[in-house]
Amino acid sequence: MLGLSKNKIKWLRSLHLKKNRDSFGLFIVEGEKLVQEAIKFSPGEIELVIHTSDFTVEDALYENILVSEDELKQVSLLKTPNKALAILKKSQFSLPRKTDELILALDGIQDPGNLGTILRIADWFDIKNIICSNQTVEQYNPKVVQSSMGAIFRIQIHYTNLENWIKESGLPVYGALLEGENVYTMKLPSQAVLVLGNEGSGISRELIPLITNAISIPRFGIAESLNVSVAAGILVSEFKRKMN
Amino acid sequence: MLGLSKNKIKWLRSLHLKKNRDSFGLFIVEGEKLVQEAIKFSPGEIELVIHTSDFTVEDALYENILVSEDELKQVSLLKTPNKALAILKKSQFSLPRKTDELILALDGIQDPGNLGTILRIADWFDIKNIICSNQTVEQYNPKVVQSSMGAIFRIQIHYTNLENWIKESGLPVYGALLEGENVYTMKLPSQAVLVLGNEGSGISRELIPLITNAISIPRFGIAESLNVSVAAGILVSEFKRKMN
Repeated sequence: MLGLSKNKIKWLRSLHLKKNRDSFGLFIVEGEKLVQEAIKFSPGEIELVIHTSDFTVEDALYENILVSEDELKQVSLLKTPNKALAILKKSQFSLPRKTDELILALDGIQDPGNLGTILRIADWFDIKNIICSNQTVEQYNPKVVQSSMGAIFRIQIHYTNLENWIKESGLPVYGALLEGENVYTMKLPSQAVLVLGNEGSGISRELIPLITNAISIPRFGIAESLNVSVAAGILVSEFKRKMN
Repeated sequence: MLGLSKNKIKWLRSLHLKKNRDSFGLFIVEGEKLVQEAIKFSPGEIELVIHTSDFTVEDALYENILVSEDELKQVSLLKTPNKALAILKKSQFSLPRKTDELILALDGIQDPGNLGTILRIADWFDIKNIICSNQTVEQYNPKVVQSSMGAIFRIQIHYTNLENWIKESGLPVYGALLEGENVYTMKLPSQAVLVLGNEGSGISRELIPLITNAISIPRFGIAESLNVSVAAGILVSEFKRKMN
């Protein structure tokens, strides 16, 4: 197919907003590399690929539309659109119940770049499930999708009441707290929940009593805190270092 | 003083651009907390504080102007300006020559959020000097300043020809490379340069021969890479963990 109808442009642009992503059950993936990752890792979820002539689409099970750079720009969220944009169906996963893994629990992470970066950390360290509180930014926010660098297609992300889920998990609960035990020197299990709190306010008051092990990254200087995705990276790295 | 003249507004807005920050030798710091940090850590550099009535300015050595929220909005770069904005003189430091510390060398970091986050990591782990290639984003970019969370006032950041500086440093040069040695199990010195490369292209070709120790964070999953500030956090954490 060639070119975009006015209705298609309107529909694509509507997906820039969460309420429309929610009602259609769809989300946007942008850029050559990320669209290629979507085709590779989530072929069954792709509804539509629109692309310029320098992006190669093999004969596929999904609709694809060849567009001009100007047309791509009309529906893109990026300052400099890059060859392709795909529309995918949102995934549905059931919440993990019994598990022998390290699971991340995100308690009100607000910044989409931080969530995307945490997904990328999970993808590097082979964390399969991330449980988000309902106050955490939407996983299908375009900035989350872009900064995840494809991790969004490989990690199972769940939104739920974190307090209830943690209570039912039966796992030891590690929480990143400033006054926690030194993570460098403590023993860490391979099965656990690691709770990371909001960028400004930290872990919610109602989750604090559920934490069985408060942990912290030793501070050598005078910064008040680390960026939450950096803290996530260091803590997950410590768990993985000690598992192996 | 009360209110902003048209000329003052014009001048303040001109500092949104790098070329004007360069020619005036000034930069902008925004928000209640960050302006308080500037007053605490860089009092001698402050040229001007403009603030709304709910920000308290003690009798000070610098000019301060009480403004309305609308006036603050006119000169702010933030979507939701927050009580105060300060103009500071840029700092001048001489390049560190002989050192017994861990020094970060940033080779073409482009994203201001990444640079700000790396400054915050340095501030947490007590790294005093960061050497940036001339292709690295400007430290006084407003997004760098904001995401540094005050670290910009405490870390000495230098821009120079990185290749020449590394050659003259006489320090062992650790470089974050995908095929490097496992950072978890190797010995790490307390005096070293740690080189971090560009988000997309990695460490520059001309710096590769200068690396005496290629190091990497073990990968357990399938992500292609980690965000550069997360990698910086994990690697610096490993250096500090082994020093102590």
